[in-house]
Amino acid sequence: MNHLLTLTELSNEEINLLLMDAQEFVDGKEWKVEKQSFVANLFFEPSTRTRFSFEVAEKKLGIDVLNFEAITSSVQKGETLYDTVRTLQAIGANAVVIRHTDDEYFKQLSSGINIPIINAGDGCGHHPSQSLLDLLTMKQEFGSFKDLKVLIVGDIRHSRVARSNAEILTRLGANVKFSGPSEWHDETNPFGSYISLDEGIEESDVVMLLRIQHERHDQSIGLTKEEYHEQYGLTIERGKKMKQNSIIMHPAPFNRDVEIASELVESMNSRIFKQMENGVFVRMAILKRAFQHVEGRVLLCRSL
Amino acid sequence: MNHLLTLTELSNEEINLLLMDAQEFVDGKEWKVEKQSFVANLFFEPSTRTRFSFEVAEKKLGIDVLNFEAITSSVQKGETLYDTVRTLQAIGANAVVIRHTDDEYFKQLSSGINIPIINAGDGCGHHPSQSLLDLLTMKQEFGSFKDLKVLIVGDIRHSRVARSNAEILTRLGANVKFSGPSEWHDETNPFGSYISLDEGIEESDVVMLLRIQHERHDQSIGLTKEEYHEQYGLTIERGKKMKQNSIIMHPAPFNRDVEIASELVESMNSRIFKQMENGVFVRMAILKRAFQHVEGRVLLCRSL
Amino acid sequence: MNHLLTLTELSNEEINLLLMDAQEFVDGKEWKVEKQSFVANLFFEPSTRTRFSFEVAEKKLGIDVLNFEAITSSVQKGETLYDTVRTLQAIGANAVVIRHTDDEYFKQLSSGINIPIINAGDGCGHHPSQSLLDLLTMKQEFGSFKDLKVLIVGDIRHSRVARSNAEILTRLGANVKFSGPSEWHDETNPFGSYISLDEGIEESDVVMLLRIQHERHDQSIGLTKEEYHEQYGLTIERGKKMKQNSIIMHPAPFNRDVEIASELVESMNSRIFKQMENGVFVRMAILKRAFQHVEGRVLLCRSL
Repeated sequence: MNHLLTLTELSNEEINLLLMDAQEFVDGKEWKVEKQSFVANLFFEPSTRTRFSFEVAEKKLGIDVLNFEAITSSVQKGETLYDTVRTLQAIGANAVVIRHTDDEYFKQLSSGINIPIINAGDGCGHHPSQSLLDLLTMKQEFGSFKDLKVLIVGDIRHSRVARSNAEILTRLGANVKFSGPSEWHDETNPFGSYISLDEGIEESDVVMLLRIQHERHDQSIGLTKEEYHEQYGLTIERGKKMKQNSIIMHPAPFNRDVEIASELVESMNSRIFKQMENGVFVRMAILKRAFQHVEGRVLLCRSL
Repeated sequence: MNHLLTLTELSNEEINLLLMDAQEFVDGKEWKVEKQSFVANLFFEPSTRTRFSFEVAEKKLGIDVLNFEAITSSVQKGETLYDTVRTLQAIGANAVVIRHTDDEYFKQLSSGINIPIINAGDGCGHHPSQSLLDLLTMKQEFGSFKDLKVLIVGDIRHSRVARSNAEILTRLGANVKFSGPSEWHDETNPFGSYISLDEGIEESDVVMLLRIQHERHDQSIGLTKEEYHEQYGLTIERGKKMKQNSIIMHPAPFNRDVEIASELVESMNSRIFKQMENGVFVRMAILKRAFQHVEGRVLLCRSL
Repeated sequence: MNHLLTLTELSNEEINLLLMDAQEFVDGKEWKVEKQSFVANLFFEPSTRTRFSFEVAEKKLGIDVLNFEAITSSVQKGETLYDTVRTLQAIGANAVVIRHTDDEYFKQLSSGINIPIINAGDGCGHHPSQSLLDLLTMKQEFGSFKDLKVLIVGDIRHSRVARSNAEILTRLGANVKFSGPSEWHDETNPFGSYISLDEGIEESDVVMLLRIQHERHDQSIGLTKEEYHEQYGLTIERGKKMKQNSIIMHPAPFNRDVEIASELVESMNSRIFKQMENGVFVRMAILKRAFQHVEGRVLLCRSL
C-alpha cells in the first residue's frame, strides 16, 4: 500500500523519485488515472492552501474529488476516524488525504484500511507533502541538498515543518540551523543547532520562516507583533544582509510584518508563491505514486 | 415525474426493478446520462455517509454535482424550502436529493417543482434509499424476502429505518420483529411484534441494529452506554447465539460497544460495510430511474 | 485583463456584447474552454443562488470548480484578501469569482493578481452579474431599453441592485424611478427620481422589487412585515393595477408577503425565476469573456 504518512519512512531514492516525478509535472507532463477514481479529502482542521492544492492536483490527474469537512460530518455524531475512513473506502474512495489535529492519527488506521492514506498534516508532527514541496523548491534553485545551509526561524517546538524538514534535509546532506525565541527551542529535535538570527541570515542559502501559529498554542512569549518582527522577523534590514542567490521560504499562510516584512513577500529572492505552485506538482507525484500501486495491483489481480 | 419519496408509494414490481438495476451496477454495468446534467444535493442535516454515497453515485453516472449545505445557504435568510428547490430548478438542477429534519417535507413541493425529488431522509419518517440498500443486502444473502426473519433492535419509535423497513419487509413477505427498551416501543407501527432480545437473536436471519440517536431526542431512558450495551446491544455473547448464516446489519454510523460490540463490527457475519457499498449502487439505480424518465420526456417532447 | 468589477467601467458596446453572448447561450450555443481550467469561487457571504449560478455556468463551460467558503478557510487565520487570491492564483486558479462584504474590495487586488477577477457582489456597491441578468431579462421582453419605464421599489439606500441598475439603465436610455420608505431614499444616487408606489406601478413597464435585507442593516423603519407589505409591497391589489405586458422582477431571495404577495411570485407577469435562469447564461458570457482573453494572451505568448 503506497501510503504517504511521513518522509521518515521513505528512502532517499524514494524521495528523489517523487521529486523527479514532480519536476516532470512542472515541466508539462500529463498523466491521468486510467479509470474513474475517487479521492476523499478529509480535513479536520481548516487549511485553504493544502486542501485546494490537493484538489487541483487530483483534478489535474482526472480524479473525482470528495471534499469532507469535519464541521458538517458524522464526526459530530462521535464516529471514530477509523470508521469514517473505512466508510469512505466502502463508498468508493480509492485513496484518502487526511489532515488531523492528532499526532500520528494514522496509526489507528494501520490495519483494516485497504486504500492509500496520504498525510496532509498531523498534529505537531508531520506534513510530508509540505516537506516535499520545500525540497523541490530548493532543488530547483540549488540542484542539490549537499552542504546547503538552511536556517529555520520561529516556533521550532510546535511546527510540523521544522520537525520534518530538519530531519529530511539533514539526511539529504544539508546543514540545518534553527533560530527563534528560546521559549520555542526544541531540545527533542536533534537535526539542527541554534544560532542567532542575524548570524544565521548572513550565512544561509535558505531562510525558511515559520508561521506564528496563534491558533495552535496559547503559551505567549509576551511579545507584540511589532516586537516579534523586530527581534525574530525577516525585517527589510535583515533581508539586505542575506547572501546573494539565497532565497526566502515560508510554508504560509504568513503574517505580514510579523514573520516577514510585507515588502519582502514578493521580493526577488522570495520563493513563497513558487512553493505554492510546486505544491500542486508535488501532490500530483504523491497521488500518481499511490494510484500506480493501486492500478498495478488491479492489473495483477486481473492477470491471475 | 419519477420522484422517490417513500417506498410505500412503490409497487413490489417497482422495488424489484430498482433492486435488479442496483445489482447490475454491483456486477459492473455502466450507464451514463446522455448529456450534461446536474443534481443538487440539499442536506439540511449533516450526514457524511448518505451525502457521499449519493455524490459517488452521481459522479459514476457522469452527473455534475451541486452540494448544498444548509449552514452556508440563503436558508439563513429565511427562504422556504419550496423557493430554494424552485431556485435550484431555475438554475439548472435536473434533479434534487434532499435530506431534511421535517417529516414529509416533500409535501410542500408537490406542485410547482418539475424535476425529480429524491428523498434522502425526512424527519423520523422515511429513508427510502437506506431501505433499498438494506433490501439489496438481504437479497444478495438470502435470494428472497419470503419468510425471512428480521429482528430490528433499538429505538423503534424514532427511527426512520425501523418505520420504513418494517413496512416494506412485511409487504415483501418477511417476518419482522422488534426489540429494545419499552420506552422506545412504537404502538403506531403495525408491521412487527415485540420479542425479547435474546429470543429474537436466536431465531432471526437478520439482526438489524439501530443507532442510538443521541442528537435526535433527549428523552433519556436512563441507561449508561455500558448498561445499554449489556441490556440491548449485540454483545459478543449474543453474537455467538446467532443462527448460522444469519447476518448483522446497521444503518451506521454505529456506536461501538453500545449497539454492537466493537469486535463484531467487521466480523464474518457483519454486513455493515457491505451495506455502505450497496448504498452507492442502489442510489445509482434510483438516479437512473429519475433520469430515464426525464430523458424519456425530453425525447417525447422533441418527437412531437 | 478581463476583470468584471462593475458595469460602470464597461461601454454600452461591451454590455451589449455580453448580452448577445448570453442570449446565444440561452438559445443553445455551446462553448467550452480549450484546456483544463480552474475557477475559484470565493464567497465571504453566503449566497446560494449566486454561487450555484456561477458553479453551473462554470461547469457548462467545462471549467473545474474550486469552492471556497470563508467559514472553513485560512481567512480565520487572518490572511488578507490579496494573499488569499494570490495563493489561489499560485495553486492554479485561472480566474476568481469573489463575493465580499467590503465595498470595492477589488481595489486592494489591482496589482499583483494576474488572473481575471469577477465581482459577484461587493458590500452595498456593485453586483454586475445581477445587473446583466436583469438587463437580459428586460431585453428579452422589450427588445430595447430606450424609454423603458423601470420602477425600483424598496431599500434604495442599501441595495447593490438599486445602485448599479439605476446607473446602467439610465445610461442605456431607460427612465428609472424609485419608491419606498423615505428612510431608505438615497440622495447620493442621481439616476432616478422618487414617485409614490401606486403611481409608479400604474405607469411602469418593469416593477423591480428589492429584498428587505434584515441581515444587512439594523436601522429599523419601525414597520411590521404586514405593514411593510401594505405600504410598500406588491400586494395583489397593486398587481392588478400594473400595465398590460409589464413585468415583475426581484433579485431574490424574496420574502413572500413582504415585498411581494405570495400569489404573485409565479404569476403570469412575474419574471423572478426567469431571472435566475438567465443568470446562468449571463455568467457563462462573463466567464467566456474572461477566458477568451486569457486564452488569447496564451496564444499570443506562444506565437512570439
